[in-house]
Amino acid sequence: MATNHDASTQNCLDMTNARNKTSINVLSVKQFIYNGQEELQRKDKLIDIISKDPVFDKSKREWMTRTEKYTRGLRMINRIHELEHSLGWSKEGTAVATSLLDDPLPISLHMTAFEPVFLLQASQELLDKYAGLIATRGILGCYMQTELAHGSNVAALETTATYILETKEFEIHSPTLTSSKWWIGALGKTATHGVVQAKLILPGGRDMGPHLFFVQLRSLETHKLLPGITAGDIGPKSFNGFAATDNGFARFDHVRIPKDQMLSKFSQVTDDGKYVHPPHAKISYGGMLCIRSGMVTTAGWVTAKAAVISIRYATVRRQGSIDTDGLEKQVISYPSLHTRLIPILGRAYVFISLGRALSQSFQIMAQRLSGGDTSLLTELHATTSGLKVLCTTTSVQDIENARRSIGGHGYSAFSGVGRFYADMIPSVTYEGENFVLDQQVVRAALKAFHNLFGLERKTRPLTSTIQNLTPSSYYLRLLSSPENEPPILEDSDGLNSSWNNSETLILLLEWRAALVVHEMAQTTQDPDTTIYQRVSKSITEAFVGQRVGEMIGGLRTNSGLKENDVAVLSQLYLLYLQTTVEGALVDFLSFGILRISNPSRVGASRDPTRGLRMAIARNCLSLVPEVIGLTDALGFSDWELDSALGVYDGNVYQALWDKVQTEPLNDIEVPDAYKESIKPILSRGRRIADMRSGTKL
Amino acid sequence: MATNHDASTQNCLDMTNARNKTSINVLSVKQFIYNGQEELQRKDKLIDIISKDPVFDKSKREWMTRTEKYTRGLRMINRIHELEHSLGWSKEGTAVATSLLDDPLPISLHMTAFEPVFLLQASQELLDKYAGLIATRGILGCYMQTELAHGSNVAALETTATYILETKEFEIHSPTLTSSKWWIGALGKTATHGVVQAKLILPGGRDMGPHLFFVQLRSLETHKLLPGITAGDIGPKSFNGFAATDNGFARFDHVRIPKDQMLSKFSQVTDDGKYVHPPHAKISYGGMLCIRSGMVTTAGWVTAKAAVISIRYATVRRQGSIDTDGLEKQVISYPSLHTRLIPILGRAYVFISLGRALSQSFQIMAQRLSGGDTSLLTELHATTSGLKVLCTTTSVQDIENARRSIGGHGYSAFSGVGRFYADMIPSVTYEGENFVLDQQVVRAALKAFHNLFGLERKTRPLTSTIQNLTPSSYYLRLLSSPENEPPILEDSDGLNSSWNNSETLILLLEWRAALVVHEMAQTTQDPDTTIYQRVSKSITEAFVGQRVGEMIGGLRTNSGLKENDVAVLSQLYLLYLQTTVEGALVDFLSFGILRISNPSRVGASRDPTRGLRMAIARNCLSLVPEVIGLTDALGFSDWELDSALGVYDGNVYQALWDKVQTEPLNDIEVPDAYKESIKPILSRGRRIADMRSGTKL
Repeated sequence: MATNHDASTQNCLDMTNARNKTSINVLSVKQFIYNGQEELQRKDKLIDIISKDPVFDKSKREWMTRTEKYTRGLRMINRIHELEHSLGWSKEGTAVATSLLDDPLPISLHMTAFEPVFLLQASQELLDKYAGLIATRGILGCYMQTELAHGSNVAALETTATYILETKEFEIHSPTLTSSKWWIGALGKTATHGVVQAKLILPGGRDMGPHLFFVQLRSLETHKLLPGITAGDIGPKSFNGFAATDNGFARFDHVRIPKDQMLSKFSQVTDDGKYVHPPHAKISYGGMLCIRSGMVTTAGWVTAKAAVISIRYATVRRQGSIDTDGLEKQVISYPSLHTRLIPILGRAYVFISLGRALSQSFQIMAQRLSGGDTSLLTELHATTSGLKVLCTTTSVQDIENARRSIGGHGYSAFSGVGRFYADMIPSVTYEGENFVLDQQVVRAALKAFHNLFGLERKTRPLTSTIQNLTPSSYYLRLLSSPENEPPILEDSDGLNSSWNNSETLILLLEWRAALVVHEMAQTTQDPDTTIYQRVSKSITEAFVGQRVGEMIGGLRTNSGLKENDVAVLSQLYLLYLQTTVEGALVDFLSFGILRISNPSRVGASRDPTRGLRMAIARNCLSLVPEVIGLTDALGFSDWELDSALGVYDGNVYQALWDKVQTEPLNDIEVPDAYKESIKPILSRGRRIADMRSGTKL
Repeated sequence: MATNHDASTQNCLDMTNARNKTSINVLSVKQFIYNGQEELQRKDKLIDIISKDPVFDKSKREWMTRTEKYTRGLRMINRIHELEHSLGWSKEGTAVATSLLDDPLPISLHMTAFEPVFLLQASQELLDKYAGLIATRGILGCYMQTELAHGSNVAALETTATYILETKEFEIHSPTLTSSKWWIGALGKTATHGVVQAKLILPGGRDMGPHLFFVQLRSLETHKLLPGITAGDIGPKSFNGFAATDNGFARFDHVRIPKDQMLSKFSQVTDDGKYVHPPHAKISYGGMLCIRSGMVTTAGWVTAKAAVISIRYATVRRQGSIDTDGLEKQVISYPSLHTRLIPILGRAYVFISLGRALSQSFQIMAQRLSGGDTSLLTELHATTSGLKVLCTTTSVQDIENARRSIGGHGYSAFSGVGRFYADMIPSVTYEGENFVLDQQVVRAALKAFHNLFGLERKTRPLTSTIQNLTPSSYYLRLLSSPENEPPILEDSDGLNSSWNNSETLILLLEWRAALVVHEMAQTTQDPDTTIYQRVSKSITEAFVGQRVGEMIGGLRTNSGLKENDVAVLSQLYLLYLQTTVEGALVDFLSFGILRISNPSRVGASRDPTRGLRMAIARNCLSLVPEVIGLTDALGFSDWELDSALGVYDGNVYQALWDKVQTEPLNDIEVPDAYKESIKPILSRGRRIADMRSGTKL
């Protein structure tokens, strides 16, 4: 056994060999995933600038205190704005540059929550006064919704905005401890202004429920809090996540603002205290949908980073049995590793494309909404709720599984993967707690179901209703006739196997959605507690399945990719469908959806799920030679990944060694703790040992 | 809606009411879970001492740098030893006190790895010289096995120990970068000595594989590294976990040690360089089994803490629809919450009892082993491998689910739950990576299977072999006759339902293990990649199921508990069995194990899994009034939990508010970042906005 090989040389060689084995055209696939040459070039240019600028240096962040991380974060924001100004970046360019920083920063909330809500809902007068300042960050904002004791149930928010007839003002007030605004990004120390969700109270005490108000928080001269406002940072987060963001609290003690600072585009109060209703009750959901759409894209890219690091490390790590080259095997060659990692890569590819399509849908809807057309709102709301749940839940699970696949070194902060989890994990509870959102998906599904099969439909013919099904409930067509049945499956190893047929897999996912929703509809009086999640997941996975089918079609028709690239990406998308079906086997088996024409074909196997599992194993195995190409095509620089184990050249052990030498504990050989604690421990121990036995060292 | 209620009063009232509703005798159950009055009193006494001592103050740890956390850790160890000495604690008392500290400390490795290995394998001469000093911490040790590029595959370790005939010494050497010892707890800055795993090289170059050597690392006078040794800390860990532990690296440059420092109780080298074989090849596994047994107990207690915090918070948190008292409902009343949380509590109870039983088995085995009797080793090895995987994987998942159940506040470091995850998560990859251990369980299972049904058995009658089945393969009896079939299930709401019958559920788990192992045996030539995990999980869950059956029996016969306490705990254990079956539904459905006599009994339901899911929902609902009693019975003080959301009195929002005021960012109103960054951002923004539009604020 050749144990004395030079690991660095071998690691780099393994990586080069893996790169040479890839059959895809990496640049073509990269341009495909970045939606064209232009976007890719912009990103590469930005990375080139940022990664060389010492303000964005990452090498010391692991050891910084929270205050230092916050200070560094603001320094980075300031530098981004300097660069924007001096290099003439567009608004989008600045947004991309900020997102590349790989640290959640207070400015994100200004850009993704405060500004969009303000632009969507402020009156023209308010827009004229502040939109310019908001765009240039002449003021810095936050969006204050959640309270200490009120998150999911917006209707129960306690903060009040009472209209004062005499002075034509609103009085913002926090009546209780629990009404303190809480978790508000950038509120702690940064924001000068904010949009406050508060119950609008009209003269006479009439409570009109939550509305939005624009409030100045801090002096633009001194940055001190304005009178009547108590605010601060809510402290560190779990896993050391979001450390540079000053999530904050605020209490208002009868703070007066002029009447025109109510965001009154859709609902307003007249001077004499009368309420003017909004044109559509849900019109203010626009901002929320924008954030949720963005979360799908983020989930895709962060999952992608975790996949790249873990796949690169698995390519150069050797462990276990001896390969033909006399060395231990590369761990990526073990099915137990590559069947865990390649599906993660597949989901990253799918979510990135899905997020892009969703953002486009959002743009169309927002445009129509600004003209008062709310027709797309309901459908997009149903879709984004389910997708937000699915993509955030899946993403954190994939990131963590990728980290664990690294083995012991995955726990080192220098693997870089733990950081993704720490910053991504709040997404499962913020912007709609996932369990709560599931229930919204269920409500929409039951509505669609009853619309089609319930008493309400009776006046319209079923066929016309089915023709009008939106993408989010298209699966319901399967229930339109009792003669419809799930497809008979051909379980074989060949290409004709149903397990390798994307259309069949998508149809299976739709059947599952249809039958789970049917089950829910039959048992609404006494539902079992898992059914909400199962319904939400079924529907969303059927929806994503359809989209993946379109992606596969699009590869052939309009991606501009060569045949081999199309084939490889199609296999990756197929893997997404296969593993999605695998993850839902309980539903498939429970509702009799797996109708296999030739069960138990493999020897004495009695397992009807074996065919699918074997198809996944074979698909993964066939993709192994392509994974380094597919990870390179995601286009991450070493600076972006900031991972000793995910370095491009594969020289992982040297990179880890070098990183370890920067640990401050290693600055001095004998730690300060020696004199204070270690020496007393040892001396006491020796003394007692001596007393007990007379033994001397 | 009564929104102006005083939340503090209401929170405390809700907690008191919940306490009053509990029917169990909390003290009796507490003594039961602590295995008697004595152990409970010792723990309470230790907590009383430690929690009042300023050295163990936890209030500043969230903001400490790694170096500060390490320094604090050593200070705590020193103080523990002072107290041990001055108060006359036993060795076990000190171990308990250390475990109560809730921070993984370098001394743990001295106690759980270095000392046991040394005591088990050192020669009598070496024991005479060092055992006393090790016991009193006159020297501090570490256990050096893992290398930079070698974890799971111990046989491939690169460090060498070459016997030098001329001087009767061993020369310890690290030939490559990748042979650097890595991840070694306490090696970085603390340990003075260590046990090194190194390949024993005999004169002539014969490689005898890994053996253990006792090596001094640092001077006992100056704490400086001895010549030829390079060592240091390997840097921060993911999620900020294990920050106080100096996991370290070390390289040896031809370091000589006397021959008698080989741990030579079981294998040795004669003066003239001949090798004397160990009596049993696996005899050195003892220490590993001890650590793995301990991990089950730890998993139980840490899961318990997460359960207590999340259940207490769910009891006082009110959100959503309005209850009969005019307030929003307590969230524990929602099935979506309590069906997530109560099973976690159940698993905590089961794992704590399981860990205790396992440690007792280990003691018996160790005793026999020290006399050369290895008969129990194989069985305990098979059992602990599977249990280590199951309990660590389940525990981290439960901890994280408990944290997420808290909603947004679960992400605050002050919830305390994230810390448990951060410190517990490496257990899935250390002491045997879980995926690798799964394969060991599979190997043992296949051996038992072939022993029973393969060619080897032919000489012995099947019945006698079945009578000799060990607990870990007892399920195999089910395959002994083709007439054996899984039980027919009665699916009803009543107590007679099979879903409420613990014996039936255990039998189902055994059937699943039997059929999954049978499937594995039929497909070993071409296994699907999930089968290893499914086999390992099936066997271990059948084993635990049997133990839970014994626990339920033990409650009735020898727990000393009153009837009502027995009834409630039996329901909790039943819930463990029910949710274990639920988690394995794919296997049950695939192999036709769910043979329900009366399917589709509930209205138009087509879901064969509904009966089980409803039984779980009803069991959880019936346990809701008992959960505060059951969490109190786990006996954690507020100091131990260190969670604003898990405080005993329920005053969670006040506790969170108070904690937040200690955030250093709140020490000054205008942060330092203002002058450096925020002011420039705002000024630039205003300047640009002015230029663009002439708008002034």
